[in-house]
Amino acid sequence: MPIVMYDLAGADPALRFSPYCWRIRMALAHKGLAVETVPWRFTDKDAIACSGQGRVPVIRDGDSVVSDSWEIACYLEAHYPERPSLFGGAVGQAHARLINAWADSAVLGPAARLVVRDILDAIDPKDVDYFRSSREQRFGMTLEAVQADGRENRLAAFRDSLTPVRLVLRTQPWLGGTAPSYADHILFGTLQWPRCISRFEMLAADDPVLAWQERALDLYGGLGRSAPRV
Amino acid sequence: MPIVMYDLAGADPALRFSPYCWRIRMALAHKGLAVETVPWRFTDKDAIACSGQGRVPVIRDGDSVVSDSWEIACYLEAHYPERPSLFGGAVGQAHARLINAWADSAVLGPAARLVVRDILDAIDPKDVDYFRSSREQRFGMTLEAVQADGRENRLAAFRDSLTPVRLVLRTQPWLGGTAPSYADHILFGTLQWPRCISRFEMLAADDPVLAWQERALDLYGGLGRSAPRV
Repeated sequence: MPIVMYDLAGADPALRFSPYCWRIRMALAHKGLAVETVPWRFTDKDAIACSGQGRVPVIRDGDSVVSDSWEIACYLEAHYPERPSLFGGAVGQAHARLINAWADSAVLGPAARLVVRDILDAIDPKDVDYFRSSREQRFGMTLEAVQADGRENRLAAFRDSLTPVRLVLRTQPWLGGTAPSYADHILFGTLQWPRCISRFEMLAADDPVLAWQERALDLYGGLGRSAPRV
Repeated sequence: MPIVMYDLAGADPALRFSPYCWRIRMALAHKGLAVETVPWRFTDKDAIACSGQGRVPVIRDGDSVVSDSWEIACYLEAHYPERPSLFGGAVGQAHARLINAWADSAVLGPAARLVVRDILDAIDPKDVDYFRSSREQRFGMTLEAVQADGRENRLAAFRDSLTPVRLVLRTQPWLGGTAPSYADHILFGTLQWPRCISRFEMLAADDPVLAWQERALDLYGGLGRSAPRV
């Protein structure tokens, strides 16, 4: 029985764009685990009530229900230890936790400011009011103002947030070293989100992070590359 | 024969304050390796000419001379595999490289702006002209202006740069997980530098990073805590 994963979807159910869900799609593929994804919208709180919270990704694996992308990655590593490791051991896992926290706090936020208005055009109509009001409360201004300010004034800050990645890619092809690890999936999901939901060019054409992203799009039979985009 | 390490010193040869040298002092202690440190000043280029470059740390281990803190950490891990691991394997090492790049690009720079003028009061008189001119060229203003602007306008940005660390410390005591890894030594060195060279309070009294730093100061017989400060 495949693992079931509730996966944020747009008005088009094939459009999947959550950065956290993409981390887990890649982690499942990394482990070679079959998955059946269920399209989920921001306001479908009842569908994942079994997880005791209201956000995706949520997975159901037999009798186990797990939420939160980091917790799911740790669950997969613990429950499928015979399959390719996401972390390469306990210290690699501890270090990945810092990389996860870095991506969430230093990369996702600046990325959001570049595409948050575009999201509104792609999500399910029933999600629009919820999305606009919750995000405008968070940013303290309209989504139009956030995105306009982002693209005019904050693109460099977003690109600068990836400086550590560029330094690492000078000497190793993946954040995991010679092969992808969950650290790669963390960053991949973070960038797959704007890639799927917007046509805005987040990275300069000569950015080594873009070359890394292109390689990552080809992983696991082109899982990321074959994903629908707006 | 102990490993010899060239270690940045102030006018007082006991004052050791390089963030990169501190990373390696902690890494050597982590591995239980004896070290003989040689006080070195910015302008002592000849003393480390054997390394083919002009910065510390430089170590001499028998016939091997290694420079650059990251390269030295990798050298120690490769040459002393039977001693406690700094990285917990290849993936942990790859992830630590990203943490190293993050600390260098996102934490060290903001930290420098808070203490760079104080450094001038502590370094050897022969280094003063070199230090001032090289750093003022880098910052594009006087060291006095950098530090005044830093303390007035950039303290929050420095503290914000440590947000990922705070998130991680909610659920694990060390960046390495249940025990310190080289990731801890990277951050420890980064903070030991302002701690030794300045009396400016970099962290708020209730910051969990400060509690972590206090624990780290006690590691290896209080190696960090016993270090002289200005």
